[in-house]
Amino acid sequence: MPSSDDLTAHERFMHMALQQAQYAMQEGEVPVGAVVVAGTRVVAKAYNQTERLQDPTAHAEMLAITAAFNYLGAKYLPDCTLYVTLEPCLMCAGALYWGQMGGLVYGAQDARKGFTTYGISPLHPKTTVHHGILAEQSQAMLQAFFRNLRR
Amino acid sequence: MPSSDDLTAHERFMHMALQQAQYAMQEGEVPVGAVVVAGTRVVAKAYNQTERLQDPTAHAEMLAITAAFNYLGAKYLPDCTLYVTLEPCLMCAGALYWGQMGGLVYGAQDARKGFTTYGISPLHPKTTVHHGILAEQSQAMLQAFFRNLRR
Repeated sequence: MPSSDDLTAHERFMHMALQQAQYAMQEGEVPVGAVVVAGTRVVAKAYNQTERLQDPTAHAEMLAITAAFNYLGAKYLPDCTLYVTLEPCLMCAGALYWGQMGGLVYGAQDARKGFTTYGISPLHPKTTVHHGILAEQSQAMLQAFFRNLRR
Repeated sequence: MPSSDDLTAHERFMHMALQQAQYAMQEGEVPVGAVVVAGTRVVAKAYNQTERLQDPTAHAEMLAITAAFNYLGAKYLPDCTLYVTLEPCLMCAGALYWGQMGGLVYGAQDARKGFTTYGISPLHPKTTVHHGILAEQSQAMLQAFFRNLRR
Protein backbone atom coordinates (compact mmCIF):
# COMPACT_ATOMS: atom_id res chain seq x y z
CA MET A 1 0.00 0.00 0.00
CA PRO A 2 1.42 3.41 -0.92
CA SER A 3 1.79 6.06 1.77
CA SER A 4 -1.46 7.88 2.41
CA ASP A 5 0.07 11.08 0.97
CA ASP A 6 0.11 9.48 -2.45
CA LEU A 7 -3.58 8.61 -2.42
CA THR A 8 -6.53 10.70 -3.46
CA ALA A 9 -9.38 11.02 -0.95
CA HIS A 10 -11.41 8.57 -3.04
CA GLU A 11 -8.59 6.05 -2.86
CA ARG A 12 -8.13 6.50 0.88
CA PHE A 13 -11.77 5.77 1.61
CA MET A 14 -11.86 2.96 -0.92
CA HIS A 15 -8.92 1.37 0.88
CA MET A 16 -11.07 1.33 4.01
CA ALA A 17 -13.87 -0.30 2.06
CA LEU A 18 -11.40 -2.89 0.76
CA GLN A 19 -10.35 -3.58 4.33
CA GLN A 20 -14.01 -4.30 5.11
CA ALA A 21 -14.19 -6.61 2.09
CA GLN A 22 -11.13 -8.41 3.49
CA TYR A 23 -13.00 -9.03 6.76
CA ALA A 24 -15.89 -10.52 4.75
CA MET A 25 -13.43 -12.76 2.90
CA GLN A 26 -11.97 -14.00 6.19
CA GLU A 27 -15.46 -15.00 7.33
CA GLY A 28 -16.32 -16.84 4.14
CA GLU A 29 -18.61 -14.09 2.87
CA VAL A 30 -18.55 -12.74 -0.68
CA PRO A 31 -15.91 -10.01 -0.21
CA VAL A 32 -17.67 -6.68 -0.59
CA GLY A 33 -17.06 -3.80 1.79
CA ALA A 34 -18.48 -0.32 2.22
CA VAL A 35 -17.92 2.86 4.20
CA VAL A 36 -20.05 5.97 4.52
CA VAL A 37 -18.23 9.28 4.73
CA ALA A 38 -19.72 12.59 5.90
CA GLY A 39 -17.38 15.30 4.67
CA THR A 40 -14.04 13.77 5.63
CA ARG A 41 -15.35 11.74 8.55
CA VAL A 42 -16.10 8.03 8.30
CA VAL A 43 -19.48 7.47 9.95
CA ALA A 44 -20.13 3.82 9.11
CA LYS A 45 -18.28 0.73 7.92
CA ALA A 46 -19.75 -2.62 6.98
CA TYR A 47 -19.15 -5.75 4.98
CA ASN A 48 -21.38 -8.28 3.34
CA GLN A 49 -22.97 -10.58 5.93
CA THR A 50 -25.48 -12.57 3.92
CA GLU A 51 -24.16 -15.89 5.25
CA ARG A 52 -23.75 -14.95 8.88
CA LEU A 53 -27.17 -13.31 9.08
CA GLN A 54 -28.77 -15.85 6.72
CA ASP A 55 -30.26 -12.83 4.99
CA PRO A 56 -29.55 -12.24 1.30
CA THR A 57 -30.42 -8.56 1.75
CA ALA A 58 -27.54 -8.05 4.22
CA HIS A 59 -25.30 -6.49 1.58
CA ALA A 60 -22.45 -4.25 2.72
CA GLU A 61 -24.23 -1.17 1.35
CA MET A 62 -27.51 -1.85 3.17
CA LEU A 63 -25.73 -2.43 6.47
CA ALA A 64 -23.49 0.62 6.04
CA ILE A 65 -26.22 3.07 5.18
CA THR A 66 -28.54 1.84 7.91
CA ALA A 67 -25.62 2.22 10.35
CA ALA A 68 -25.06 5.76 9.02
CA PHE A 69 -28.75 6.65 9.51
CA ASN A 70 -28.51 5.35 13.07
CA TYR A 71 -25.26 7.12 13.86
CA LEU A 72 -26.22 10.46 12.38
CA GLY A 73 -29.86 10.31 13.47
CA ALA A 74 -30.76 11.40 9.96
CA LYS A 75 -33.16 9.93 7.44
CA TYR A 76 -31.44 11.51 4.47
CA LEU A 77 -27.74 11.64 3.74
CA PRO A 78 -27.24 14.37 1.10
CA ASP A 79 -23.88 15.28 2.63
CA CYS A 80 -22.58 11.71 2.70
CA THR A 81 -20.80 9.53 0.19
CA LEU A 82 -20.98 5.75 0.10
CA TYR A 83 -17.76 4.00 -0.92
CA VAL A 84 -18.27 0.39 -1.94
CA THR A 85 -15.85 -2.03 -3.53
CA LEU A 86 -18.38 -3.45 -6.03
CA GLU A 87 -21.07 -1.77 -8.09
CA PRO A 88 -24.34 -1.84 -6.10
CA CYS A 89 -27.27 -4.02 -7.17
CA LEU A 90 -30.76 -2.62 -7.81
CA MET A 91 -31.80 -3.18 -4.20
CA CYS A 92 -28.85 -1.22 -2.86
CA ALA A 93 -29.22 1.47 -5.51
CA GLY A 94 -32.86 1.76 -4.45
CA ALA A 95 -31.76 2.16 -0.83
CA LEU A 96 -29.36 4.94 -1.88
CA TYR A 97 -32.28 6.59 -3.67
CA TRP A 98 -34.45 6.59 -0.54
CA GLY A 99 -31.55 7.87 1.56
CA GLN A 100 -30.88 10.67 -0.95
CA MET A 101 -27.19 9.86 -0.72
CA GLY A 102 -25.01 12.73 -1.87
CA GLY A 103 -22.38 10.58 -3.56
CA LEU A 104 -21.62 7.04 -4.60
CA VAL A 105 -18.10 5.84 -5.35
CA TYR A 106 -17.66 2.22 -6.35
CA GLY A 107 -14.74 0.10 -7.41
CA ALA A 108 -15.32 -2.84 -9.74
CA GLN A 109 -18.25 -3.04 -12.09
CA ASP A 110 -20.75 -5.88 -11.71
CA ALA A 111 -21.62 -6.79 -15.27
CA ARG A 112 -24.24 -9.29 -14.12
CA LYS A 113 -26.16 -7.61 -11.33
CA GLY A 114 -24.88 -4.04 -11.12
CA PHE A 115 -27.52 -1.32 -11.22
CA THR A 116 -26.09 0.19 -14.41
CA THR A 117 -26.82 -2.98 -16.40
CA TYR A 118 -30.57 -2.31 -16.40
CA GLY A 119 -30.53 0.80 -18.54
CA ILE A 120 -32.47 2.83 -15.99
CA SER A 121 -31.35 5.27 -13.34
CA PRO A 122 -32.54 4.09 -9.95
CA LEU A 123 -30.40 6.60 -8.06
CA HIS A 124 -31.57 9.94 -6.73
CA PRO A 125 -30.91 12.70 -9.30
CA LYS A 126 -28.75 14.52 -6.74
CA THR A 127 -26.39 11.56 -6.23
CA THR A 128 -23.03 12.03 -7.94
CA VAL A 129 -21.32 8.84 -9.09
CA HIS A 130 -17.67 7.88 -9.54
CA HIS A 131 -16.44 4.41 -10.30
CA GLY A 132 -13.33 2.44 -11.11
CA ILE A 133 -11.54 3.49 -7.91
CA LEU A 134 -9.20 0.63 -6.91
CA ALA A 135 -11.33 -1.55 -9.16
CA GLU A 136 -8.56 -4.03 -9.83
CA GLN A 137 -7.95 -4.79 -6.17
CA SER A 138 -11.67 -5.22 -5.56
CA GLN A 139 -12.08 -7.48 -8.59
CA ALA A 140 -9.02 -9.52 -7.64
CA MET A 141 -10.43 -10.20 -4.19
CA LEU A 142 -13.77 -11.33 -5.63
CA GLN A 143 -12.06 -13.56 -8.18
CA ALA A 144 -9.89 -15.16 -5.50
CA PHE A 145 -12.99 -15.80 -3.40
CA PHE A 146 -14.95 -17.49 -6.18
CA ARG A 147 -11.91 -19.43 -7.40
CA ASN A 148 -11.51 -20.80 -3.90
CA LEU A 149 -15.21 -21.62 -3.66
CA ARG A 150 -15.12 -23.74 -6.81
CA ARG A 151 -12.24 -25.89 -5.56
CA MET B 1 -65.34 -7.08 6.59
CA PRO B 2 -67.03 -10.13 5.10
CA SER B 3 -66.87 -13.45 6.93
CA SER B 4 -63.63 -15.28 6.29
CA ASP B 5 -65.53 -17.98 4.36
CA ASP B 6 -66.33 -15.44 1.68
CA LEU B 7 -62.71 -14.48 1.13
CA THR B 8 -60.15 -16.05 -1.13
CA ALA B 9 -56.82 -17.00 0.43
CA HIS B 10 -55.24 -13.99 -1.24
CA GLU B 11 -57.86 -11.72 0.32
CA ARG B 12 -57.46 -13.27 3.77
CA PHE B 13 -53.72 -12.67 3.82
CA MET B 14 -54.10 -9.23 2.29
CA HIS B 15 -56.51 -8.35 5.11
CA MET B 16 -53.68 -9.18 7.51
CA ALA B 17 -51.33 -6.94 5.54
CA LEU B 18 -53.96 -4.16 5.68
CA GLN B 19 -54.12 -4.61 9.45
CA GLN B 20 -50.36 -4.04 9.54
CA ALA B 21 -50.81 -0.92 7.39
CA GLN B 22 -53.39 0.27 9.93
CA TYR B 23 -50.79 -0.04 12.70
CA ALA B 24 -48.40 2.07 10.61
CA MET B 25 -51.14 4.68 10.16
CA GLN B 26 -51.74 4.83 13.91
CA GLU B 27 -48.04 5.55 14.44
CA GLY B 28 -47.89 8.30 11.85
CA GLU B 29 -46.06 6.15 9.31
CA VAL B 30 -47.00 5.91 5.65
CA PRO B 31 -49.53 3.06 5.88
CA VAL B 32 -48.05 0.07 4.11
CA GLY B 33 -48.20 -3.41 5.60
CA ALA B 34 -46.84 -6.80 4.63
CA VAL B 35 -47.05 -10.44 5.64
CA VAL B 36 -45.01 -13.43 4.51
CA VAL B 37 -46.84 -16.73 4.14
CA ALA B 38 -45.25 -20.17 3.90
CA GLY B 39 -47.90 -22.48 2.50
CA THR B 40 -50.88 -21.43 4.63
CA ARG B 41 -48.84 -20.30 7.62
CA VAL B 42 -48.03 -16.67 8.32
CA VAL B 43 -44.33 -16.52 9.23
CA ALA B 44 -43.78 -12.75 9.38
CA LYS B 45 -45.75 -9.51 9.64
CA ALA B 46 -44.42 -5.98 9.44
CA TYR B 47 -45.36 -2.43 8.66
CA ASN B 48 -43.47 0.54 7.37
CA GLN B 49 -41.24 2.04 10.10
CA THR B 50 -39.20 4.62 8.24
CA GLU B 51 -40.05 7.34 10.77
CA ARG B 52 -39.63 5.35 13.96
CA LEU B 53 -36.31 3.85 12.86
CA GLN B 54 -35.21 7.02 11.03
CA ASP B 55 -34.30 4.71 8.19
CA PRO B 56 -35.86 5.22 4.76
CA THR B 57 -35.04 1.62 3.88
CA ALA B 58 -37.29 0.29 6.69
CA HIS B 59 -40.12 -0.49 4.29
CA ALA B 60 -42.73 -3.06 5.34
CA GLU B 61 -41.42 -5.54 2.75
CA MET B 62 -37.77 -5.31 3.88
CA LEU B 63 -38.72 -5.81 7.52
CA ALA B 64 -41.12 -8.67 6.72
CA ILE B 65 -38.75 -10.66 4.56
CA THR B 66 -35.80 -10.20 6.92
CA ALA B 67 -38.09 -11.41 9.74
CA ALA B 68 -39.06 -14.41 7.58
CA PHE B 69 -35.41 -15.27 6.92
CA ASN B 70 -34.77 -15.09 10.66
CA TYR B 71 -37.81 -17.14 11.61
CA LEU B 72 -37.33 -19.86 9.02
CA GLY B 73 -33.53 -19.90 9.24
CA ALA B 74 -33.51 -19.84 5.45
CA LYS B 75 -31.72 -17.61 2.98
CA TYR B 76 -34.13 -18.30 0.16
CA LEU B 77 -37.89 -18.35 0.30
CA PRO B 78 -39.10 -20.17 -2.83
CA ASP B 79 -42.07 -21.62 -0.92
CA CYS B 80 -43.16 -18.29 0.52
CA THR B 81 -45.40 -15.51 -0.73
CA LEU B 82 -45.12 -11.87 0.27
CA TYR B 83 -48.41 -10.02 0.60
CA VAL B 84 -48.03 -6.25 0.62
CA THR B 85 -50.67 -3.55 0.43
CA LEU B 86 -48.73 -1.36 -2.04
CA GLU B 87 -46.65 -2.25 -5.08
CA PRO B 88 -43.01 -2.67 -3.98
CA CYS B 89 -40.35 -0.16 -4.99
CA LEU B 90 -37.15 -1.16 -6.81
CA MET B 91 -35.26 -1.68 -3.55
CA CYS B 92 -37.90 -4.06 -2.20
CA ALA B 93 -38.26 -5.83 -5.55
CA GLY B 94 -34.47 -6.28 -5.50
CA ALA B 95 -34.72 -7.79 -2.02
CA LEU B 96 -37.39 -10.22 -3.27
CA TYR B 97 -35.03 -11.15 -6.09
CA TRP B 98 -32.20 -12.00 -3.71
CA GLY B 99 -34.58 -13.96 -1.48
CA GLN B 100 -35.90 -15.92 -4.49
CA MET B 101 -39.40 -15.32 -3.16
CA GLY B 102 -41.92 -17.80 -4.58
CA GLY B 103 -44.78 -15.34 -4.88
CA LEU B 104 -45.63 -11.67 -4.63
CA VAL B 105 -49.17 -10.43 -4.13
CA TYR B 106 -49.72 -6.72 -3.88
CA GLY B 107 -52.72 -4.46 -3.53
CA ALA B 108 -52.59 -0.96 -4.94
CA GLN B 109 -50.28 0.05 -7.75
CA ASP B 110 -47.67 2.73 -7.11
CA ALA B 111 -47.61 4.70 -10.35
CA ARG B 112 -44.71 6.85 -9.14
CA LYS B 113 -42.25 4.46 -7.49
CA GLY B 114 -43.59 0.95 -8.09
CA PHE B 115 -41.14 -1.51 -9.62
CA THR B 116 -43.34 -2.04 -12.69
CA THR B 117 -42.97 1.61 -13.74
CA TYR B 118 -39.34 1.10 -14.80
CA GLY B 119 -40.00 -1.23 -17.72
CA ILE B 120 -37.57 -3.85 -16.41
CA SER B 121 -38.15 -7.02 -14.43
CA PRO B 122 -36.15 -6.86 -11.21
CA LEU B 123 -37.88 -9.91 -9.72
CA HIS B 124 -36.55 -13.45 -9.77
CA PRO B 125 -37.89 -15.34 -12.83
CA LYS B 126 -39.47 -17.91 -10.50
CA THR B 127 -41.53 -15.32 -8.58
CA THR B 128 -45.22 -15.40 -9.53
CA VAL B 129 -47.04 -12.07 -9.24
CA HIS B 130 -50.65 -11.15 -8.52
CA HIS B 131 -51.91 -7.65 -7.90
CA GLY B 132 -55.03 -5.65 -7.35
CA ILE B 133 -56.07 -7.68 -4.27
CA LEU B 134 -58.02 -5.32 -1.95
CA ALA B 135 -56.37 -2.51 -3.87
CA GLU B 136 -59.14 -0.02 -3.11
CA GLN B 137 -58.86 -0.41 0.66
CA SER B 138 -55.08 -0.07 0.47
CA GLN B 139 -55.31 3.00 -1.75
CA ALA B 140 -57.99 4.57 0.44
CA MET B 141 -55.80 4.23 3.51
CA LEU B 142 -52.83 5.87 1.75
CA GLN B 143 -55.01 8.69 0.43
CA ALA B 144 -56.42 9.34 3.91
CA PHE B 145 -52.89 9.45 5.32
CA PHE B 146 -51.57 11.96 2.79
CA ARG B 147 -54.74 14.07 2.94
CA ASN B 148 -54.27 14.32 6.68
CA LEU B 149 -50.57 15.16 6.28
CA ARG B 150 -51.31 18.10 4.01
CA ARG B 151 -53.74 19.70 6.49
